[in-house]
Amino acid sequence: MSSKPNVRRGTAEDAEALARLLRRFNDEYEDKPIDHDLTVERINALIASGEGVFFLAGMDGRDPLGFAYLQFNPSLYSRTRDAYLGELYVVPERRGEGMGRAMLEAVLEEARAKDAVHISLGTSVDDTEARGLYESTGFTNLEGGDDGPSMLYYERDL
Amino acid sequence: MSSKPNVRRGTAEDAEALARLLRRFNDEYEDKPIDHDLTVERINALIASGEGVFFLAGMDGRDPLGFAYLQFNPSLYSRTRDAYLGELYVVPERRGEGMGRAMLEAVLEEARAKDAVHISLGTSVDDTEARGLYESTGFTNLEGGDDGPSMLYYERDL
Repeated sequence: MSSKPNVRRGTAEDAEALARLLRRFNDEYEDKPIDHDLTVERINALIASGEGVFFLAGMDGRDPLGFAYLQFNPSLYSRTRDAYLGELYVVPERRGEGMGRAMLEAVLEEARAKDAVHISLGTSVDDTEARGLYESTGFTNLEGGDDGPSMLYYERDL
Repeated sequence: MSSKPNVRRGTAEDAEALARLLRRFNDEYEDKPIDHDLTVERINALIASGEGVFFLAGMDGRDPLGFAYLQFNPSLYSRTRDAYLGELYVVPERRGEGMGRAMLEAVLEEARAKDAVHISLGTSVDDTEARGLYESTGFTNLEGGDDGPSMLYYERDL
């Protein structure tokens, strides 16, 4: 692509489209279906409280082609909130055009604007495209950042 | 050990001792030194807001032998906050006595009491003792939980 992908911040008006794209994302990667109305409610609540920021890339009819979800969490080490990249998704047929990188750059800019000093994320070991993007923008999976051991993400439902 | 390790919830009175233990933890695992006064301030702020909960195990003079830090983050998928195990530490000379497991059980109980439906954490691939503890208490590192790919934790400073 010769032109830089268009990225804009999501507003309450985007909640329905974001929820549809989040469902597409979940259908591709997760085994649990998500509830559309609850997702719309959560997106609106997070935007309203400022705890969550969404970025959208491109448009496919009424829906964006990609989205990023940035969350601000409490921090044990800093008076400012820590940034957490909750989701970064581009529809399969439009990958490789730079939309992911453009959204990630917007995420880092927003996190710095909120005075965050740290950002983290979890990703799959076999998502080599995403890992390459994260590593090329300064993220590390190695504890301490140099030749430390790999850091793993664990989870469970309660 | 025949008796179950004693675990109690940390209060503002424990902030100084917790900050000392957090420094010991950081000296063992991290390359960046932490500021004692800022850590005390953060511990008190998190306890006061309810965004953070600390558990302490055992006592060595004026300081505990281990601590767990449980944090409550916004959630994109649930009206209740997601639980995040920020730290789980036992001093090296007292490992293998069940303090880590007892604190982790208190963490899961507290997360459920706050209606959290999900808990996550990051750990090092070579911390086999901790990974065994997490896996034996229902955590998974595999996406989807069955035979999915391993999930990695990435981070960067801003």
